[in-house]
Amino acid sequence: MKTIAEYSADIETALRSLKYPSGSLTSLYQPIEYALSAGGKRIRPVLTLMGAEAFGDDAPKALKAAIGIETFHNFTLLHDDVMDKSDMRRGRPTVHKKYDENTAILSGDTMLTLATKYVSEVEDDKLRKVLDTFNDMALRVYEGQRLDMDFEDAEHISLDSYLEMIEGKTGSLLGAAVKIGAIIGGASDKDAQLMYEYGVMTGLAFQIQDDWLDTFGDASTFGKPIGGDINNAKKTYLYVAAMSEGGQNVEALRSAYQIPSGDVRVKAVTRIYDKLGMNEKCRKAVGHYSAKALKALNSTSLSEEKKESFRKLAEKLIGRKK
Amino acid sequence: MKTIAEYSADIETALRSLKYPSGSLTSLYQPIEYALSAGGKRIRPVLTLMGAEAFGDDAPKALKAAIGIETFHNFTLLHDDVMDKSDMRRGRPTVHKKYDENTAILSGDTMLTLATKYVSEVEDDKLRKVLDTFNDMALRVYEGQRLDMDFEDAEHISLDSYLEMIEGKTGSLLGAAVKIGAIIGGASDKDAQLMYEYGVMTGLAFQIQDDWLDTFGDASTFGKPIGGDINNAKKTYLYVAAMSEGGQNVEALRSAYQIPSGDVRVKAVTRIYDKLGMNEKCRKAVGHYSAKALKALNSTSLSEEKKESFRKLAEKLIGRKK
Repeated sequence: MKTIAEYSADIETALRSLKYPSGSLTSLYQPIEYALSAGGKRIRPVLTLMGAEAFGDDAPKALKAAIGIETFHNFTLLHDDVMDKSDMRRGRPTVHKKYDENTAILSGDTMLTLATKYVSEVEDDKLRKVLDTFNDMALRVYEGQRLDMDFEDAEHISLDSYLEMIEGKTGSLLGAAVKIGAIIGGASDKDAQLMYEYGVMTGLAFQIQDDWLDTFGDASTFGKPIGGDINNAKKTYLYVAAMSEGGQNVEALRSAYQIPSGDVRVKAVTRIYDKLGMNEKCRKAVGHYSAKALKALNSTSLSEEKKESFRKLAEKLIGRKK
Repeated sequence: MKTIAEYSADIETALRSLKYPSGSLTSLYQPIEYALSAGGKRIRPVLTLMGAEAFGDDAPKALKAAIGIETFHNFTLLHDDVMDKSDMRRGRPTVHKKYDENTAILSGDTMLTLATKYVSEVEDDKLRKVLDTFNDMALRVYEGQRLDMDFEDAEHISLDSYLEMIEGKTGSLLGAAVKIGAIIGGASDKDAQLMYEYGVMTGLAFQIQDDWLDTFGDASTFGKPIGGDINNAKKTYLYVAAMSEGGQNVEALRSAYQIPSGDVRVKAVTRIYDKLGMNEKCRKAVGHYSAKALKALNSTSLSEEKKESFRKLAEKLIGRKK
């Protein structure tokens, strides 16, 4: 198998070589090219290529489906940015800032249909399974986004609800990305499902790690200012887990969040997290879901060498410092 | 074949019996039920059922795909209403007014994926053709909506661009609706394509007729106030055709549109349309596209009796007074 960097480069090349209608339709398709040219790790389509290579020794066969996965991912970012009113992404104005909101909505819709089209460019006997996996994943992603939106005004959020939310928003896409690759590669239903599990659990570990980094990460390598989630009063794993401890902490946290955004609030909230051992608790949760991911991976019929490639990817994703 | 009213009732029953996830996901799925419960003629899914019945004597086999077509149609209305900032639809608040804009965006996305899922519930050997027809149609619809949005600020719009816009926004969906039914019924590729043509041309005639009714219709049967398009400065067939006549009319129309919205403007614009014989020109265009629709229909291998059902539907749609 190639390295992650090599697969990622293959994705970049394929994305750049996509042809869109021009002329009077530039106003519909140019924002799509813009959204897809922002770079990033391309982890999701890399997973699709790796799945196809691992089970069928034929990553190129899954290239168009991989592009579909990346197009879907960027469609969700585009609409999420409208809903969250986010102005910047990866150091550039978001689509609704660079163009306008209606463009972001309509070009986003177009990306979803293009993604479905690309993902469907597989052999006829794989189409049903690939399409069902894709559509079911898409519904999980919307459900996760809806829960996330509803959390904003929620008084109490259970840890289970939080996990359901990140499984939808983050886990299901990683799971479907690698499962679709595995199906294209000819994996058995059992192996395809185990790879889905590997992807979902890696996604959960990744998201909790991301929440952890925002509070306990190293500012010099995190790439964003520490405490952004605290300042935005985001309902992270840390927040939900701390609140679910009950008792005095609930009141203490609520008071800390009354402090205006800024260093004082970040320090006050972090102090409570420290007192509750959230640092350790978070690390444990990351370890728990990482172990689940590896357990699923180890249960597949893949060779040790191929398993090692997926272990490395999970490590790169979860062990990342930024 | 059943009557249009009977097929329409079958669609209503099927829509009402759809089950959506509840509990914490009510906030995602309830707006979808709301959007789909607004009624309407359900012409598009009726076309799907009729296509399947005409070519395979089995309308029920196409019921889920028909529901997919109607779900897609309502998804586009939902997002269009956000983009157009429309507050009312079919006498009820639009989704973004009843709920909020983010709900309209996200539940709309969910409807698009649900529509794709439903449309895919066909036999394996039909899946590729049905899915390709559906996805290509969806792209045409977005392209039409984009053109429509771009027309708002356009100085000059050619009649060809206008026709491209309504072929995308209106024609392609009617065409794909009946074509998907025909495919499910087992139509030959040639017949399926002729039925697509029948649907597209019926859609063009329908849209031009709709533009005509807004100015020359009978207020007592139109269901909306006459002159709404003129007051909203909509770029209709009448407007584009009148402007393309060139000469003095261009200036006269521009002046008439300087008059504030209201009866005076409507009368001034209508006077110019009258002078240019737009009433007659419009009727001719409707006749032209209706004839094209019937020509395609007549070229199919369908029996005379079945052709008659589709003729009736086109007549009902185009000859409507409201």
